[in-house]
Amino acid sequence: MKRPFLFLFVMALLCSASHFSLANDGYNLWLQYQKIESPTLLPEYQKQAGHIFIPGKNATSDVIEKELRTALEAMLEIAPQFTTTPKQETTLFIGTREQLPAFTLKAINIPWEKLGTEGFSIQSINQNSQKALIITGNSDVALLYGTFEFLKLLQTQQDISTVDLTSIPKTNIRVLNHWDNPDRTVERGYAGASIWDWHRLPGHVKPQYVDYARANASIGINGTVLTNVNANAQVLTPYFLKKVATLADTFRPYGIKVYLTARFSAPIEIGGLDTADPLHPEVQKWWTEKVNEIYEYVPDFGGFLVKADSEGQPGPQNYDRTQAEGANMLAKALQPHEGIVMWRAFVYSNETPDDRAKQAYNEFKPLDGKFEDNVLVQVKNGPIDFQPREPFHPLFGAMPETPLMMEFQITQEYLGQGTHLVFLGSLFEEVLDTDTYAKGPGSTVAKVVEGSLDQHALSGMAGVSNIGTDRNWTGHLFGQANWYAFGRLAWNPDESAADIAKEWLKMTFSNDEKFIRKGKSIMLQSHEAAVNYMTPLGLHHIMGWSHHYGPGPWVTDKHRDDWTSTYYHQASEDGIGFDRTASGSNALSQYAPEVQQQYENLETCPEKYLLWFHHLPWNYEMKSGHSLWDEIALHYQKGVHQTEQMITDWKSIKTHVDDQRYQQVLDFLQIQHHEAKWWRDACLLYFQQFSQMPLPEGVTQPEFSLDHYRQYTPLFVPGI
Amino acid sequence: MKRPFLFLFVMALLCSASHFSLANDGYNLWLQYQKIESPTLLPEYQKQAGHIFIPGKNATSDVIEKELRTALEAMLEIAPQFTTTPKQETTLFIGTREQLPAFTLKAINIPWEKLGTEGFSIQSINQNSQKALIITGNSDVALLYGTFEFLKLLQTQQDISTVDLTSIPKTNIRVLNHWDNPDRTVERGYAGASIWDWHRLPGHVKPQYVDYARANASIGINGTVLTNVNANAQVLTPYFLKKVATLADTFRPYGIKVYLTARFSAPIEIGGLDTADPLHPEVQKWWTEKVNEIYEYVPDFGGFLVKADSEGQPGPQNYDRTQAEGANMLAKALQPHEGIVMWRAFVYSNETPDDRAKQAYNEFKPLDGKFEDNVLVQVKNGPIDFQPREPFHPLFGAMPETPLMMEFQITQEYLGQGTHLVFLGSLFEEVLDTDTYAKGPGSTVAKVVEGSLDQHALSGMAGVSNIGTDRNWTGHLFGQANWYAFGRLAWNPDESAADIAKEWLKMTFSNDEKFIRKGKSIMLQSHEAAVNYMTPLGLHHIMGWSHHYGPGPWVTDKHRDDWTSTYYHQASEDGIGFDRTASGSNALSQYAPEVQQQYENLETCPEKYLLWFHHLPWNYEMKSGHSLWDEIALHYQKGVHQTEQMITDWKSIKTHVDDQRYQQVLDFLQIQHHEAKWWRDACLLYFQQFSQMPLPEGVTQPEFSLDHYRQYTPLFVPGI
Repeated sequence: MKRPFLFLFVMALLCSASHFSLANDGYNLWLQYQKIESPTLLPEYQKQAGHIFIPGKNATSDVIEKELRTALEAMLEIAPQFTTTPKQETTLFIGTREQLPAFTLKAINIPWEKLGTEGFSIQSINQNSQKALIITGNSDVALLYGTFEFLKLLQTQQDISTVDLTSIPKTNIRVLNHWDNPDRTVERGYAGASIWDWHRLPGHVKPQYVDYARANASIGINGTVLTNVNANAQVLTPYFLKKVATLADTFRPYGIKVYLTARFSAPIEIGGLDTADPLHPEVQKWWTEKVNEIYEYVPDFGGFLVKADSEGQPGPQNYDRTQAEGANMLAKALQPHEGIVMWRAFVYSNETPDDRAKQAYNEFKPLDGKFEDNVLVQVKNGPIDFQPREPFHPLFGAMPETPLMMEFQITQEYLGQGTHLVFLGSLFEEVLDTDTYAKGPGSTVAKVVEGSLDQHALSGMAGVSNIGTDRNWTGHLFGQANWYAFGRLAWNPDESAADIAKEWLKMTFSNDEKFIRKGKSIMLQSHEAAVNYMTPLGLHHIMGWSHHYGPGPWVTDKHRDDWTSTYYHQASEDGIGFDRTASGSNALSQYAPEVQQQYENLETCPEKYLLWFHHLPWNYEMKSGHSLWDEIALHYQKGVHQTEQMITDWKSIKTHVDDQRYQQVLDFLQIQHHEAKWWRDACLLYFQQFSQMPLPEGVTQPEFSLDHYRQYTPLFVPGI
Repeated sequence: MKRPFLFLFVMALLCSASHFSLANDGYNLWLQYQKIESPTLLPEYQKQAGHIFIPGKNATSDVIEKELRTALEAMLEIAPQFTTTPKQETTLFIGTREQLPAFTLKAINIPWEKLGTEGFSIQSINQNSQKALIITGNSDVALLYGTFEFLKLLQTQQDISTVDLTSIPKTNIRVLNHWDNPDRTVERGYAGASIWDWHRLPGHVKPQYVDYARANASIGINGTVLTNVNANAQVLTPYFLKKVATLADTFRPYGIKVYLTARFSAPIEIGGLDTADPLHPEVQKWWTEKVNEIYEYVPDFGGFLVKADSEGQPGPQNYDRTQAEGANMLAKALQPHEGIVMWRAFVYSNETPDDRAKQAYNEFKPLDGKFEDNVLVQVKNGPIDFQPREPFHPLFGAMPETPLMMEFQITQEYLGQGTHLVFLGSLFEEVLDTDTYAKGPGSTVAKVVEGSLDQHALSGMAGVSNIGTDRNWTGHLFGQANWYAFGRLAWNPDESAADIAKEWLKMTFSNDEKFIRKGKSIMLQSHEAAVNYMTPLGLHHIMGWSHHYGPGPWVTDKHRDDWTSTYYHQASEDGIGFDRTASGSNALSQYAPEVQQQYENLETCPEKYLLWFHHLPWNYEMKSGHSLWDEIALHYQKGVHQTEQMITDWKSIKTHVDDQRYQQVLDFLQIQHHEAKWWRDACLLYFQQFSQMPLPEGVTQPEFSLDHYRQYTPLFVPGI
């Protein structure tokens, strides 16, 4: 063999060898940076990204440079040249207005003011008969966001020759909420233990912390609440603050601020006071000093997230104070430092005097206008608790003088937990697109959340994280898509779920058209499938007791009614459903008149919310002509069928996915299919006791008896 | 650019790109299969491993083939050719006696009988003027072991041209003990959550299960106890057995059997009986049926590990039965299936009537000869509890009619937990090499464990696992070395710790001579360093309360004396140390007379055990001429110095280790150094209260007051 060929041969072997042992465990998320194979795009991209001007020299510009190096070497097989002074051959300019060379500023047209501190533009210009790309914004972090957008253009194989895009976040607080406990258990976590290895902090910064920050920055997330809303006051002690400071230092170059949960009774538990009354001067003083102390550790600390007066958490109610009085006390302590309070609206009485769906509204609506400027009220998307489907929360639109933050749950507590493929982009989109009619038609939930409906300076979106120590971060590979979709929708609540699914699929797996078509089909039907096999037609909260895993329509007689399934489905021989019209709890009255009218009228109430608002007889005739009972049964059956279809679709795109990720998804789809049948059989057998009607044609007969399902007790379910 | 060169250029880039993003997180353990760079060895290895004869076609031979493919492509950059019929060009033959071609059988000289079912031979022969290598044994698993040995020869860059080696395990039960709970917490686990994702079993087999089996098989481990000795009876129900069966199926091709812990009270808890009395016919029947049921799920189930009558666990004492009666009941149920019972000797009374160090001996010695043939009594290396250093357990040598299994703790409960580099090979070796004098000089602990001293058919070694979900399996990268060393010593208790350290370093990091020299120096001094800065001169069990993290010499007044530090160190103004001679608890009487004489005599008692056996005044004169107080202080100081030296040594070999692994080890070494100072300062300040003597020259003054250290309370320490 001649030498060059021998060398070639060896190189080829070396490459194949280095790839061989590289099973893809999904750790790289949507930042796979797969090689661009297109013979037309590759040279174009290589030309455009070969010489890069980055004038900044700080932690964030270092991050930009490192990300470009990693990404471009992997995707384009080039080692880009970086320069801090523009050169003849420079084809990519990344800088703020002050940093960009004059000739580029002349050629671009940027809405500098509108960009704010986080928005960015990417524009292609002609310079010396060659194309140059400009990535710009008003801050280093904006440049980082622009860089990730640029890389996404490459990952999704877009034409970049005439690019002219501007992207400005529509909310300014975009945070993950980690329900992570200091002992590394994660409440409602299905992806292993907490990624925060508190014990080894501050001495050891896990590489995962950096990759966590990279992933979040790539989708515009700019904050993280490290600790569980069911908070432990110890996290506010110096023992933990030292550790928090190290995480904050690690995340800062990525534009990510750190927040903590504040346990309302902390002044008693760690402060040695005998009260936590928010109007007590000693309590106020304690919090002011505590906040000052925190800022010594973390100079850009974001602020507090608080769950108060709910599910056993202490709060202002303990002292006959309002939620506003509680929140404002913390807000005032934070104001000198420009910190914020995110005060959860998930407040409900331990005595359950009223329909639980009504309680947050009852508590908060009267407080509109009473909160300090640096308080956001954080409202779950629906009035109960992250159900597979809920109508929007009545507080959206009802508190015009208060910025309302959206709280979505990315972790799938009620949606199949760690093994069901349920793309939540669809759920998020459905909620955000709903019209509250608060200021007439077009007053969508999105506009409330963006603050644009009521001109709020503060706005935000929180996502309860699904991240853990599992090697692929989220347990289910498609859980990554939910993290991704949350980030994208927090940045722009008007984004389409279908577009998000498409770009995630491309970045995560493949740009192949058939793959994208099938992949999108799986993702976009998956939420409806889960609703069908779990809680069709407005049913809700009929999961297994406490762990919420699997069906539990028989759950009853617990220490509070509104933690039972029978409270929510109200099934009896005369029918099923929760009457929330005027003849029932009248929760409907909390919505704008247009919404009320639509939902209270059986003719206009969307069938997807039917049993949420109405109690109806089993033989009630649906629009399809079927009886309610048959319709319920057919929905369950359809859900099972959809999970079957997802398996078929996934198998059809096997060749586009590496073995390890393919197999994991397939295993989980099979578990999901199995559990969809469990749901169908258990729920139909249970409800059939009341309907006394046979299963309609097309619905498979249950495999076991109702007793079998009732007695089946899953053990050690994760996430509690 | 001419085409070949362009291609070359692209290939080079591709290779560098594919390596760029490949941070080494340590997941591949000692099976790194790094490229062989030696220009002399590479062609030799390539020639020898290019054409491989593997006649078997079963799950284990598939595993052999896959491992060879992975390893040889990575190390040698060849794609080996496999054949099931010998060919002219075949250079590597892997087969049993029945499978090997006649001409190879003629050329080799194998002690077939002695090999047993697990031993193997590798011999080089001349065939048709070329070298052929034969890997053989009496079973498929023996061939797998031989294959891993062959790969190790390559990994450690040995000359294979004249290889002639035979390796036969000296114990037949070589098991990991996982103290993993079904909720995925791990008792004394410092590497994240349990790797057993029970919830997703049996539907999903994590790739880690396979890699776990590979790693274990590569060091000869042939069993795994999946569940915690503080057992939950639920693991014996069908709900879990289905999941256990899937793990057993996954591990079987690797020669690894599955064992479970049996909670003694299971007949009550899951069987509905009102007694667990081992002599009660209903109880015996229940266990017999339970065992039969388990074998339906796992036809080659290994058997039970039992912790009874200890630390709150139920046991035969509850019914006034002996440990033998308890063990034999289970043993009889297992006998028809050839299962075994590993009955832990870690029994001590809740009432602490006597020196805890004496209790296991008192309980078990009288039972020698009373156990069924399929029972092993599993004895911890020392009489207390996995201390940094203990004299050997007096049961070794004291029960000639009973096979005694060694129980080592690989997880570092008392040895720095998840952040200290402590190579346990040294500790294991020290124990195994100690002479019990049970049958005169040379009756080492190793011989007791091997069964060779008393001709037992059964023998074994158990290691309490340090494995979790951390990306590198063991939290600390050097924790991998302890897993490795355990496996190697279980196979051959006479192996040298230094040799094991050397081969682990080579396989895990680099064959570079300087690297090996420094790496060995770090590893081989690390155990002594930990003893020095924690518990020098025979001190023991003075760690923090309950979690055992950090110093806690002041721990006293707990609900049992023998869980306190003051019980163990006995420090007062008149001196320090636990008198276990005839004037004290006389625990020494449990040893053979030769040992007794050596340890009771202050002249001959090794100073490393001094305060284990003797209570001495602070001014007692040591062999060095120092007072006892000075000697203690100097040992603490030396330990701190040794951790400093480890940092220096590690920094000096930076260029031989990839960045990510280098940085993790460095971070942890710095934590270790910091904590060594914490240990020194806290212990010396505490003991100084009694000695009333100044710190000798050379010992650094403590940074804080004793009160500071006493009040410092680590929060949420892992592993409880």
